[in-house]
Amino acid sequence: MPTKKKNDHRRADGRKLDELRKICITPGVAPAATASVLMEAGRNKIICAVSIEEDVPRWMRAQKITGGWVTAEYSMLPYASEERKRRDITAGKIDGRSQEIQRLIGRSMRAVIDLEQLGPRTVWIDCDVVRADGGTRTASITGAFVACRLAVNRLIAEGRLAVNPIREALAAVSVGIVGGQPMLDLAYTEDVAAETDMNVVMTESGKFVELQGTAEEHPFSKHELSALLKLAEKGVAELLKKQRDAIRSAK
Amino acid sequence: MPTKKKNDHRRADGRKLDELRKICITPGVAPAATASVLMEAGRNKIICAVSIEEDVPRWMRAQKITGGWVTAEYSMLPYASEERKRRDITAGKIDGRSQEIQRLIGRSMRAVIDLEQLGPRTVWIDCDVVRADGGTRTASITGAFVACRLAVNRLIAEGRLAVNPIREALAAVSVGIVGGQPMLDLAYTEDVAAETDMNVVMTESGKFVELQGTAEEHPFSKHELSALLKLAEKGVAELLKKQRDAIRSAK
Amino acid sequence: MPTKKKNDHRRADGRKLDELRKICITPGVAPAATASVLMEAGRNKIICAVSIEEDVPRWMRAQKITGGWVTAEYSMLPYASEERKRRDITAGKIDGRSQEIQRLIGRSMRAVIDLEQLGPRTVWIDCDVVRADGGTRTASITGAFVACRLAVNRLIAEGRLAVNPIREALAAVSVGIVGGQPMLDLAYTEDVAAETDMNVVMTESGKFVELQGTAEEHPFSKHELSALLKLAEKGVAELLKKQRDAIRSAK
Amino acid sequence: MPTKKKNDHRRADGRKLDELRKICITPGVAPAATASVLMEAGRNKIICAVSIEEDVPRWMRAQKITGGWVTAEYSMLPYASEERKRRDITAGKIDGRSQEIQRLIGRSMRAVIDLEQLGPRTVWIDCDVVRADGGTRTASITGAFVACRLAVNRLIAEGRLAVNPIREALAAVSVGIVGGQPMLDLAYTEDVAAETDMNVVMTESGKFVELQGTAEEHPFSKHELSALLKLAEKGVAELLKKQRDAIRSAK
Amino acid sequence: MPTKKKNDHRRADGRKLDELRKICITPGVAPAATASVLMEAGRNKIICAVSIEEDVPRWMRAQKITGGWVTAEYSMLPYASEERKRRDITAGKIDGRSQEIQRLIGRSMRAVIDLEQLGPRTVWIDCDVVRADGGTRTASITGAFVACRLAVNRLIAEGRLAVNPIREALAAVSVGIVGGQPMLDLAYTEDVAAETDMNVVMTESGKFVELQGTAEEHPFSKHELSALLKLAEKGVAELLKKQRDAIRSAK
Amino acid sequence: MPTKKKNDHRRADGRKLDELRKICITPGVAPAATASVLMEAGRNKIICAVSIEEDVPRWMRAQKITGGWVTAEYSMLPYASEERKRRDITAGKIDGRSQEIQRLIGRSMRAVIDLEQLGPRTVWIDCDVVRADGGTRTASITGAFVACRLAVNRLIAEGRLAVNPIREALAAVSVGIVGGQPMLDLAYTEDVAAETDMNVVMTESGKFVELQGTAEEHPFSKHELSALLKLAEKGVAELLKKQRDAIRSAK
Repeated sequence: MPTKKKNDHRRADGRKLDELRKICITPGVAPAATASVLMEAGRNKIICAVSIEEDVPRWMRAQKITGGWVTAEYSMLPYASEERKRRDITAGKIDGRSQEIQRLIGRSMRAVIDLEQLGPRTVWIDCDVVRADGGTRTASITGAFVACRLAVNRLIAEGRLAVNPIREALAAVSVGIVGGQPMLDLAYTEDVAAETDMNVVMTESGKFVELQGTAEEHPFSKHELSALLKLAEKGVAELLKKQRDAIRSAK
Repeated sequence: MPTKKKNDHRRADGRKLDELRKICITPGVAPAATASVLMEAGRNKIICAVSIEEDVPRWMRAQKITGGWVTAEYSMLPYASEERKRRDITAGKIDGRSQEIQRLIGRSMRAVIDLEQLGPRTVWIDCDVVRADGGTRTASITGAFVACRLAVNRLIAEGRLAVNPIREALAAVSVGIVGGQPMLDLAYTEDVAAETDMNVVMTESGKFVELQGTAEEHPFSKHELSALLKLAEKGVAELLKKQRDAIRSAK
Repeated sequence: MPTKKKNDHRRADGRKLDELRKICITPGVAPAATASVLMEAGRNKIICAVSIEEDVPRWMRAQKITGGWVTAEYSMLPYASEERKRRDITAGKIDGRSQEIQRLIGRSMRAVIDLEQLGPRTVWIDCDVVRADGGTRTASITGAFVACRLAVNRLIAEGRLAVNPIREALAAVSVGIVGGQPMLDLAYTEDVAAETDMNVVMTESGKFVELQGTAEEHPFSKHELSALLKLAEKGVAELLKKQRDAIRSAK
Repeated sequence: MPTKKKNDHRRADGRKLDELRKICITPGVAPAATASVLMEAGRNKIICAVSIEEDVPRWMRAQKITGGWVTAEYSMLPYASEERKRRDITAGKIDGRSQEIQRLIGRSMRAVIDLEQLGPRTVWIDCDVVRADGGTRTASITGAFVACRLAVNRLIAEGRLAVNPIREALAAVSVGIVGGQPMLDLAYTEDVAAETDMNVVMTESGKFVELQGTAEEHPFSKHELSALLKLAEKGVAELLKKQRDAIRSAK
Repeated sequence: MPTKKKNDHRRADGRKLDELRKICITPGVAPAATASVLMEAGRNKIICAVSIEEDVPRWMRAQKITGGWVTAEYSMLPYASEERKRRDITAGKIDGRSQEIQRLIGRSMRAVIDLEQLGPRTVWIDCDVVRADGGTRTASITGAFVACRLAVNRLIAEGRLAVNPIREALAAVSVGIVGGQPMLDLAYTEDVAAETDMNVVMTESGKFVELQGTAEEHPFSKHELSALLKLAEKGVAELLKKQRDAIRSAK
Repeated sequence: MPTKKKNDHRRADGRKLDELRKICITPGVAPAATASVLMEAGRNKIICAVSIEEDVPRWMRAQKITGGWVTAEYSMLPYASEERKRRDITAGKIDGRSQEIQRLIGRSMRAVIDLEQLGPRTVWIDCDVVRADGGTRTASITGAFVACRLAVNRLIAEGRLAVNPIREALAAVSVGIVGGQPMLDLAYTEDVAAETDMNVVMTESGKFVELQGTAEEHPFSKHELSALLKLAEKGVAELLKKQRDAIRSAK
């Protein structure tokens, strides 16, 4: 009698352990932005928009730092989840989690953008979550990269940039251990049940830009770390392909 | 030689003086909300989402007021216009204009919803502007009404409401005087140039719910008021039809 | 037997349907301001003060807009109503209603002041309500106009202004439908009971600067609109006379 | 040849060294408050209003403290001085000086009010400065006491209080050393020039409730302290008489 | 039989009525500051740190005031008392008491520092209370003076200042009446029980910089004032000696 | 001729590549807290204090979650670095970096504390940085664990806890790649120069609780990741020993 192979194990939504959710990256969702995409990853729906400001932050001028700056803002729209979430302005302060995520998005983008070549301008990345289902931070990074690339293409087309300041492509995915099982791209219910949750931001050349692993209750071993990194590598490779398709389609 | 008739006058975008911009109301844009539509009016793009909370505001409980409540929040996303707009939470306070608009949206909806029949629940209406091109407040009201109707339909289908608490349909449109010419549904460049700008919220039975006329520099006469109201009436009638189509299509 | 005529109908405070509350406009209440009046309309008591700042807002300088600016702030003092109202600074944010009103006051004044002739200065209008009894927004506008006129007179007397930048006088009044009956200048209890409430800001030449009609529960017809506008016209004419008397008395 | 006596020395406004500014305490300025006075001391004009809330602060309930509470809020209206002062809500935080003053007012009143006898209610004291000319904190205390007394009288008249919880009357005055000369009740220009400035809150029985002496640049000696206290005593006696007159007049 | 002398009266912690708590002033606690001390007074533990900024506040530049500025910030760390105290940033506003204290500290230091001689720089004094046991405001002043003196010494040693801008030394102590008994340096439990509480800031030459006496429930007489001032004088003299020792030890 | 071995490479402060800075953990620095330590790691000085509140957060009660909660607050004192840092309350919002760190501290502690066994109480961890020199977030975690352990010991000693809810010990360290060289425990100047920076939170049993690797400009390879993890393991082992010594010494 044949035994069921590990990878045959199916998840709640029918995916294999190493399978991404359905990815759909649609350019042009916010037409007044310099560039934008609607990033859909399973049920996640995120508007990723890039606006270019022809100025640098005050602190750069004060410290006489040359080149440009890349910064991100992330926000859950109130109706992104089934229980309505209060707006930050109503709460009176920015949500701690949102602030952490927007710092991560900005840092990730700056790791592959040559700020010197960008010139004295600011790249504002806005990620607004229209619907959330786990993994919005990695989906935001993957979508934001496409919006950045499209914005750069537009600046080049308009003669405002001579050279592409983006060194290489980058995408992000979550991996985790759920019920003792390492798996790729956790949906919300999996994320909640996960013993370990890891966000991986990787470049096209297979290097890490960010690695954020968090144990919820059960710390994870080095062996488990290896298994998770392997899954992440597979997921990122697939996401990079989806990004290339979306960038090509926008031309 | 024939003279050009007044109504033949064409605007910057080719519309006639009494012509609405292209209207497109697409249900389901925010799937975690109780109901939602993407409201497009010309280049305006607004997410109108309704979330039902099975509780009433604290002040209603404190004052022992029975029935439910309807409230709205309106926000321009940072990339809605070509110059990026700072988020309210960054500015530290809600934008005065936004606050005025969200009060108008809430008030308008409450004028056609029987709060007693709504039962002890809160209808949260969120209008987030993805792209703005003049008239976002009236487009928000027109879209919000559809989202409210769809939310009510869902509550009824789920057996949470026995009776439809909405008394009649309602839509809103702007009218104004630009270059001495009364016209319907002002786009942004028309709005900026308008001597007088008026927002009209009307019901299916042809009655006014809100009438907000503002003179920019040149106060307007009673004669001009009549012309504007006639245009508004025509526009609202067309919008009510678009709403009915959208509500039917969502079934 | 003679039937009682409609206009003989008396209100709770004994007024006729088309009768204003007692108006008293006393200049000089805030002696450190450039000009000020205590505006009393029935039981309403509002300090309307104008301070001139010899500078323009940052956004005007940034956008290189010439001329001056007129802006207003409106606030209910905590003891203005019988139940003490928390200060904005305690609540941590400006009251939505106050913000809407102060935008209305500023807009109304700018409609009759030639900002170019005003020169590079800011007119700050402060309206602080010492006691509120319905209609404080229209009373604020009526009082603020007097304070603006007196401030302009002072600037001219001091040689700081050569020409009067005010195009014409302006006053405001509320009208509404209470118990099916259109009436002029609603007191608080009438305002609460009103089916429709309308604020009208009109100029001396009989033109509209602002028209804000709101239906509470019962939308209003075009016929009712006409009746309300007629009442408003009568009220504004009487207020303009009171303003002229106050301005003369301050000389 | 006779030498000029020290007390003959006249100040900028013609007052003697030991002379108060003209005091005028007018009850009823804020008719919706439980009690109120317009406190005028020279050019100072302050609305002192008392509102009674039939509840105690949350912290008292939490700590199961019996009796009532007395608290104060102090605010400079924007037009109180010649250069317009930004409102706290615009600055985003309460002014440090205002907060210090309102704590002083509250503390002073609590020193003469028996909180146990007050019963489970909160006395809100609001002091809003319509015009400031030095010494607004002491004038606020003097005026606030009258408003408190009138509020207590009203509660007693309405049968809500059986016994007067106020132990004895209290008034406040500033004294200071200007140009080496101790003087009573400093006006703004004197206050700015003062080497030492002292606020004294005293009771009818001649005891101190608060004593706040501050040296600006030149610390003061024990000898100077004595001279200042003597002046304060004289000023407070006169203020107590003015208070009694105002309280009587309000009956 | 000998009667017990008044001064033999012992307090809860065994001290005599005119005895200070144990004082310990340790320089260098915050090594990145320009100068710092750990101020211990009984169980009070306060970090007093001075940072020099080579710039003056905006308002000084705007008003073209020459010389420098001295300002202070005071904060209770959340664990300073047994019941954890919420941070200001969590409460959303600075604690009223803290703001009053930091204004007192700044004012006291400015009274003995020649701002002209300080030159165009800002002295930032930070007092953070690690443990509180009554009298933290006076201990902060006493410690802050030492930190200021050490910072000045360092600026002189580094050639950034030619002359010592400090006119004379200054220390602060609390005195109060507890159970009818005047006593020196109140600990928390004494402070809570005190009928009268007085903070005295005095200079080396025996003059007053600040005198803040507050009656809790029982106003105090002139006779009691004299007794309190005598105790304060004794305490300050001892504190000045401790300060000198600490300054010497830091060399 | 012998070649210099890689590990002989010395850093700016003379340390070997795999050498920790000098660690000093001193209990009792904040005596009013339930437990506290002064955590010194090289020039870093951090007060880590634990306060126990016998209640759980509102959201736990609302969601009827049993057990307790552990939360952390992290703050840089203004004088922690040579350029004075503005307090959060002055800036009006909590610093993004601080918020990210305090979330990390809380999450780390919750990973080794059995919240069910903790019982219905909140463990407040406060980390206040008196001096910062790179690696304050990992030093805060290492110190906070000791304070938690001491607090638990005290609760047990006082009979408030029957069982130790801490599953195992935990410490944290930073590692990074500087000039192409992997090294342990980065000081500030190393951190600024690092191409990659990684924070590792590990348990006594050698498992990961958090792994946060960030590439600054140069993404890192899997090979480099291995080298960094090996260094971290060594550092954490040494820190765990220092923690045990401190806990023992506090008995």
